[in-house]
Amino acid sequence: MLYIIGLGLGNEKDITVKGLEAVKRCKKVYMEAYTSLLSFGLSSDGLSTLEKLYGKPVILADRETVEEKADDILMEAHESDVAFLVVGDPFGATTHTDLVVRAKKLGVDVKVVHNASVMNAVGVCGLQLYRYGETVSIPFFTETWRPNSFYEKIQRNRMLGLHTLCLLDIRVKEPTLESLCRGRKQYEPPRYMTIRTAIEQLLEVEQTLGESVYSEDTTCVGFARLGSEDQMVVAGSMKQLLMVDFGEPLHCLVIVGETHPVEGEMLGFYTLGGGK
Amino acid sequence: MLYIIGLGLGNEKDITVKGLEAVKRCKKVYMEAYTSLLSFGLSSDGLSTLEKLYGKPVILADRETVEEKADDILMEAHESDVAFLVVGDPFGATTHTDLVVRAKKLGVDVKVVHNASVMNAVGVCGLQLYRYGETVSIPFFTETWRPNSFYEKIQRNRMLGLHTLCLLDIRVKEPTLESLCRGRKQYEPPRYMTIRTAIEQLLEVEQTLGESVYSEDTTCVGFARLGSEDQMVVAGSMKQLLMVDFGEPLHCLVIVGETHPVEGEMLGFYTLGGGK
Repeated sequence: MLYIIGLGLGNEKDITVKGLEAVKRCKKVYMEAYTSLLSFGLSSDGLSTLEKLYGKPVILADRETVEEKADDILMEAHESDVAFLVVGDPFGATTHTDLVVRAKKLGVDVKVVHNASVMNAVGVCGLQLYRYGETVSIPFFTETWRPNSFYEKIQRNRMLGLHTLCLLDIRVKEPTLESLCRGRKQYEPPRYMTIRTAIEQLLEVEQTLGESVYSEDTTCVGFARLGSEDQMVVAGSMKQLLMVDFGEPLHCLVIVGETHPVEGEMLGFYTLGGGK
Repeated sequence: MLYIIGLGLGNEKDITVKGLEAVKRCKKVYMEAYTSLLSFGLSSDGLSTLEKLYGKPVILADRETVEEKADDILMEAHESDVAFLVVGDPFGATTHTDLVVRAKKLGVDVKVVHNASVMNAVGVCGLQLYRYGETVSIPFFTETWRPNSFYEKIQRNRMLGLHTLCLLDIRVKEPTLESLCRGRKQYEPPRYMTIRTAIEQLLEVEQTLGESVYSEDTTCVGFARLGSEDQMVVAGSMKQLLMVDFGEPLHCLVIVGETHPVEGEMLGFYTLGGGK
């Protein structure tokens, strides 16, 4: 059996009781390492907090491992119980659909243990989840690559009065240009887009395309470390949020559409200078 | 401190370790009883499975209790730790924003423990969450009340190739017409909309408004008891899903938009007569 287990958003204790029991049953425990490991205390001495809670080693599986060794992992899961841990929900912001498809083709049973993801935890700011339009991703701009397909999607959402969740780029284990040329594997340091960078890019695209979809006065909500003990949620205009230091990653951003009274009242508590 | 704790979707073991620790710390534990108690073994001898896990009593709070006694609950939370349990995520399909707003006004600290909700757990079928448009609600039609505002929303989503999550009506603790007239409180038995009823209503509205937004040949995915051990996920045309017995509630429905190759492959596993 392959258990795909969501870890939630905060720390090691955001796993569900069901998920923890499954991990304890499993012979081998893998953890996907290509979205974010920030909140799970993995940076210095390995996977200590998780391994302490689980009472067994956790094998980090970066993108290469999952792509190259998926069949090995799945063969193990054919013989015994194997856990594959995922930050957030298994089918939240990132997809593990491909692993499930391969498992099913090999006849390996899969059980999913759900958890919170950014996609629902943003509800904490009071904007109703059913009043969101399509989610957009904001990629890091480079000198030569400045895609703006998110602009049209935001436009459509705003015309309908809907909120827009912007997922901000994460670059983990990107090979350096040099290493690509030389064939040796070296990686760029991880990069996580800040709310400030996202807003700068959004405003640049507005200036370029000029359809007045939003402006520096448009109300947004910035979220940092959502679901963690030290999460930060601030509502304000784009201009105001540019001045806020949201601190450590991960960040995400919601562009606010039309609000109902209770939504507005709740947002007030997160507004700069207002409420609490 | 008021802890608002998501219980997730399946059973008592879908609470997070963090949530369970908070419950054990709390002096009083309330549980909202106005969305669904189905999966938590609460029907016959009370709240046994939850209370057994928590080692303390759980007080059921229906809509009336929450509305009438919110201030009492919040005053308790001012003095000591109080838990308010919510099926799914606290800010998922239903809203508890109002309780938070009242707490903040009274200066009561609030901590939210997130969990999975229908809004992200539908990802299990392989359709990417960021490719969903606005979520719609399908209310029970009555003789005189047949609202169809969901039709226009589905139309907009489908024009953009987006998927549509349809949340199906739940009627719990609805006063009977008789009791409303007589001023005595009597309640209708709870009603949970089935996928079949939802599709029948959807097709009726299509026939009435006739804009060819969807038809009985449109691909959908039906979910029953999502997140539970005995969850059921079936993909097929509306016509096909009308013939499927999805069993016990809760049900929900996704109207499929344009699919990417991996989405299509994954859906195949849930298709009637295909895959597993």
